[in-house]
Amino acid sequence: MVIVMEKHTSESNVEHVVAELTTRGFDVHRSTGSDHTVLGVVGHVDTIDPREFELMEGVQEVVRVSEPYKLSSRTFRREKTVVKARGVDIGGHDVVVMAGPCTIENEPQLFETARRVAKAGARVLRGGAYKPRTSPYAFQGMGVEGLKLLRAAGDKFNMLVVSEVMEISQIALMLPYVDVLQVGARNMQNYTLLREAGRTRKPVLLKRGGMYPTIENWLLAAEYILAEGNPNVVLCERGLPPYGDTNLRRNVLDLTAVPIVKGLSHLPVIVDPSHGTGKAALVPPLARAAVTVGADGLMLELHPEPERAWSDGPQSLDFPTFQALMRDLPPLAAAVGRRLRSA
Amino acid sequence: MVIVMEKHTSESNVEHVVAELTTRGFDVHRSTGSDHTVLGVVGHVDTIDPREFELMEGVQEVVRVSEPYKLSSRTFRREKTVVKARGVDIGGHDVVVMAGPCTIENEPQLFETARRVAKAGARVLRGGAYKPRTSPYAFQGMGVEGLKLLRAAGDKFNMLVVSEVMEISQIALMLPYVDVLQVGARNMQNYTLLREAGRTRKPVLLKRGGMYPTIENWLLAAEYILAEGNPNVVLCERGLPPYGDTNLRRNVLDLTAVPIVKGLSHLPVIVDPSHGTGKAALVPPLARAAVTVGADGLMLELHPEPERAWSDGPQSLDFPTFQALMRDLPPLAAAVGRRLRSA
Amino acid sequence: MVIVMEKHTSESNVEHVVAELTTRGFDVHRSTGSDHTVLGVVGHVDTIDPREFELMEGVQEVVRVSEPYKLSSRTFRREKTVVKARGVDIGGHDVVVMAGPCTIENEPQLFETARRVAKAGARVLRGGAYKPRTSPYAFQGMGVEGLKLLRAAGDKFNMLVVSEVMEISQIALMLPYVDVLQVGARNMQNYTLLREAGRTRKPVLLKRGGMYPTIENWLLAAEYILAEGNPNVVLCERGLPPYGDTNLRRNVLDLTAVPIVKGLSHLPVIVDPSHGTGKAALVPPLARAAVTVGADGLMLELHPEPERAWSDGPQSLDFPTFQALMRDLPPLAAAVGRRLRSA
Amino acid sequence: MVIVMEKHTSESNVEHVVAELTTRGFDVHRSTGSDHTVLGVVGHVDTIDPREFELMEGVQEVVRVSEPYKLSSRTFRREKTVVKARGVDIGGHDVVVMAGPCTIENEPQLFETARRVAKAGARVLRGGAYKPRTSPYAFQGMGVEGLKLLRAAGDKFNMLVVSEVMEISQIALMLPYVDVLQVGARNMQNYTLLREAGRTRKPVLLKRGGMYPTIENWLLAAEYILAEGNPNVVLCERGLPPYGDTNLRRNVLDLTAVPIVKGLSHLPVIVDPSHGTGKAALVPPLARAAVTVGADGLMLELHPEPERAWSDGPQSLDFPTFQALMRDLPPLAAAVGRRLRSA
Repeated sequence: MVIVMEKHTSESNVEHVVAELTTRGFDVHRSTGSDHTVLGVVGHVDTIDPREFELMEGVQEVVRVSEPYKLSSRTFRREKTVVKARGVDIGGHDVVVMAGPCTIENEPQLFETARRVAKAGARVLRGGAYKPRTSPYAFQGMGVEGLKLLRAAGDKFNMLVVSEVMEISQIALMLPYVDVLQVGARNMQNYTLLREAGRTRKPVLLKRGGMYPTIENWLLAAEYILAEGNPNVVLCERGLPPYGDTNLRRNVLDLTAVPIVKGLSHLPVIVDPSHGTGKAALVPPLARAAVTVGADGLMLELHPEPERAWSDGPQSLDFPTFQALMRDLPPLAAAVGRRLRSA
Repeated sequence: MVIVMEKHTSESNVEHVVAELTTRGFDVHRSTGSDHTVLGVVGHVDTIDPREFELMEGVQEVVRVSEPYKLSSRTFRREKTVVKARGVDIGGHDVVVMAGPCTIENEPQLFETARRVAKAGARVLRGGAYKPRTSPYAFQGMGVEGLKLLRAAGDKFNMLVVSEVMEISQIALMLPYVDVLQVGARNMQNYTLLREAGRTRKPVLLKRGGMYPTIENWLLAAEYILAEGNPNVVLCERGLPPYGDTNLRRNVLDLTAVPIVKGLSHLPVIVDPSHGTGKAALVPPLARAAVTVGADGLMLELHPEPERAWSDGPQSLDFPTFQALMRDLPPLAAAVGRRLRSA
Repeated sequence: MVIVMEKHTSESNVEHVVAELTTRGFDVHRSTGSDHTVLGVVGHVDTIDPREFELMEGVQEVVRVSEPYKLSSRTFRREKTVVKARGVDIGGHDVVVMAGPCTIENEPQLFETARRVAKAGARVLRGGAYKPRTSPYAFQGMGVEGLKLLRAAGDKFNMLVVSEVMEISQIALMLPYVDVLQVGARNMQNYTLLREAGRTRKPVLLKRGGMYPTIENWLLAAEYILAEGNPNVVLCERGLPPYGDTNLRRNVLDLTAVPIVKGLSHLPVIVDPSHGTGKAALVPPLARAAVTVGADGLMLELHPEPERAWSDGPQSLDFPTFQALMRDLPPLAAAVGRRLRSA
Repeated sequence: MVIVMEKHTSESNVEHVVAELTTRGFDVHRSTGSDHTVLGVVGHVDTIDPREFELMEGVQEVVRVSEPYKLSSRTFRREKTVVKARGVDIGGHDVVVMAGPCTIENEPQLFETARRVAKAGARVLRGGAYKPRTSPYAFQGMGVEGLKLLRAAGDKFNMLVVSEVMEISQIALMLPYVDVLQVGARNMQNYTLLREAGRTRKPVLLKRGGMYPTIENWLLAAEYILAEGNPNVVLCERGLPPYGDTNLRRNVLDLTAVPIVKGLSHLPVIVDPSHGTGKAALVPPLARAAVTVGADGLMLELHPEPERAWSDGPQSLDFPTFQALMRDLPPLAAAVGRRLRSA
């Protein structure tokens, strides 16, 4: 942490700040310029809100130097983490495709989708049993019945399954059925949920979101999971809140986040262009771009009849489009030194 | 709902959309222009995602006409709701001040603050026992011990108490101690929490926030509570995510939201300039402006020694500043036809 | 400027950065911690892009310490600037009201408006002769004929006049007619226009805006004018781009900017709640709040028949609402230690 | 345009709105539901601000149906526009690379860069002679001397040249030297500049930006140029203002805009990942992604010694990185059905 004192502040103000810092157990390096005095603070500052020192008389600005996350940082672990889930490696050489319906509606819808997903070469089936809906009057998901269907479909077509958890009490219900727990964008800063997910050892797919969806906050959210002892975190970029143009798309997919996060963290990062765009026509070009920007995987929504989907139909691919997209991806993955297997 | 068909789309496309609508039980009014055909859709469309129809062949745009919230709307209830909590009316003629520390730290800190808050004329004591913290390494709150202190301080100084609930399991723990349950900004779209808060009859202070902190989503969040039968919802504006200038303040307080919400909804609206600015020096001018813009109340953070606060010190008022602010407010309230009592 | 080196970077990297700095004429104070080495850089760093040093091997972060503007800063000039324009003081004890139509349409519209504005006690008449319009097919303003009408109306009703300049070639055309040159929000970072406005000695009303409408960039835009020798700059807050809710309002008025700017700069700051909200019904509460937050003035749009205005009718007040608002303001100004004269 | 009347509004209000519309020459189709009356408005509504009708008694909402731009729309022209500039086709089968220094500094810097750019296979040389700088104290460009150098470098290495124009008076100065006029992001809504650029027949590279950088506003800015008779507009995506994380990058590159614009407009779209990220390390992955998302070209900044660049060094590629990137691109272009020639 670096504390910059105001121009021409009094010596007693400087001494007061230094005293406060040493009382708290920090080492202080003082550097006096013609205009500003600057204090370099050394020690374990992770739990300090830098704004606290801004209150002190004579302080102009406090600058945090270390990043506030530790376990998710490249500094903590230099080699890439590969999250292993029952034979599928996320973050390894292969780019992993996860696909399925937004909401599990019934057996035929889910199984027909699963069959197509498996046939196209994807290794993970997604499907929502608990749905966060903006309106209390919208369908809220099938619950445990949906999870059972999901597990059965995954087993039948030899795929892993991933589904979203919305609150702590659902974790225990979901553990028997899913291979990956998804924490949705609206819950990225639901700290009690993150901590409970960290107390399991299931892989957690952590979507970027929350009220302050910065990359730093995303890694701090991962830190909540890691700090409880669960190292199996997969990050998922799914778009920032829209900046106007709300009739044209739903979110602003931030593909730049992929190389940024790969520089800061050892965790795998995948991309969800379905939520990230909100329009089926935009999903294929953005899925292709996500692979070339270096994503470790894709999460895609599809539906046998998007027009009749109970939720997110407008962003769901139909089967022919999905299959065509799957055929586009392997050469792109190869061009950036990765492998993506489709069939 | 209004569906605008693409220019020169075929008659069969129009008929297909009309058939789908009537199948779902809607009445359709068709208007054919030289360029565009427009379909007016009548019926209960609240649970439809307008994007669903955008998928259909020949549809250019779907426009929702009714607002998606009902119980929180002025259309549903024209007169202003007054939330009554043990003798304090929120949303009535009086502007209500809620004040106290960000975090409950210990008995002397809380009681000394409560004494000053009561003495200055505020009717509600705030204090956090469970704290949402960006970092897992930061202090997470005193829990039930803090709630007990809060209740004791409220009783001693004859004030209501309000505290934040972060997850469902905390609701039962909190009900014996608090008069108002606060749902924080990060949880505005935590739908399961909202629904459980709606199953109590405690007043709920609902802060604006979440990943998409629009006014419509705020009212939909209130709708989750109201739809469960709890009519005692107080809305609280506390700032949008910052737009640059992050060294100068923490959020962008949106005072315009107050008159907008008063036009759309019958619910009371208060303002939190402490979180809304993040800097103590900015709190008094924005608190004054909040009263003149028509807020039904204020929520303020203060601390005996802001420099030593365990959280949010930089935005906490010290006692002299708080007392001076309280003396500024009554004439402003009077100038806009309200009353604010300070002492 | 403070340069933070990466953890455990080599001594030769540190020396390389230090050498580069001293070559450029800076003094460097080095502070070595157990983790990080921090370099405090002293000298005239205003023209350096801090990102330049981020490129160097071993540099983790570069933090600018001084603000990049000088002449607009409180450090440069501690006392408040009062911009004097033909007998009207902007930034003095009185809160100044500027009002008039968005667009000058014809003599009756302008003169009737001017008469009402003057009668209500406002000292400055606004009116657009050159209009920035999103669509090339919209009315673009009356040009010089409009300026002549504006001057005549100002003279007849004994008011100053202010009008927007959109490009350099218009400055010479406008100087004979207007008392204050307005630079609109879309031109806040039109540097060549700012510089030319700085070469006049006319007061310049500088609206906040541009692609990066931060407070720092606003003060840097003012710096362009001041640096050419024109000290008569009045800042005007008029709202940030909307954050959703675009059907409910046009911009997000940032009243917190008023006390922030007053802390950083000696320049007067006024508020435009007409553009800042975009809806006439929201203008009175926000105008009242702007006065209590400490604004030095207000800019208001009005029109004899808002329904028939050629532009911005939806945000224009009609005369009765304007007059009622003017009567509301004096007690609010008095309550915050200022004076606003209405009639 | 569709006008939705308020629930249960009076018949006279409806008739008043209908009368106003027919007076202005529109045809009106009325549709009466049990709750709402909806008016479909047919005719040339392009120049109407939809908000104008929101003022009328009983109107709830006004919805624009047609897009407000015409000449830039796919409806106006279905086939893709290919902008032809002295033998280079922008928007054709080939993906065009434009590269060069941010600022023209001197002959050796420019010529050495040009030599490398040409050698790697790029067809267009970029270089700034007039620079928009946030601070008035920063270097503002070499002006005409820079343009002469740029022309000479282009001629010597057989490339087109593109440079930014900041104001009307520079257009005449630039026309003899440049092949493409660039309008920068800060000037996207500088309407007088756009109109003057439209009065030339030079290709105009129009960067997305301005205070409201929506896609609709971008196409309306293009419309200003097209409406003056210049059909040679190339759109350039270069990033939205950042959403936090300002220490990690400079803007948020919006690659989704590429397929969105290709759906709405016939104009070519290129991508500038240098400004779009602001960090050299992020440029190659985003450049690769831009090609796969369907961009018609790339604009890249490079410098012989990025550490010593006078501006934008941190986002400038050095030569080896640029050359490696150029070798990566052809297979990606081929994978999406395009051609990019590098050497």
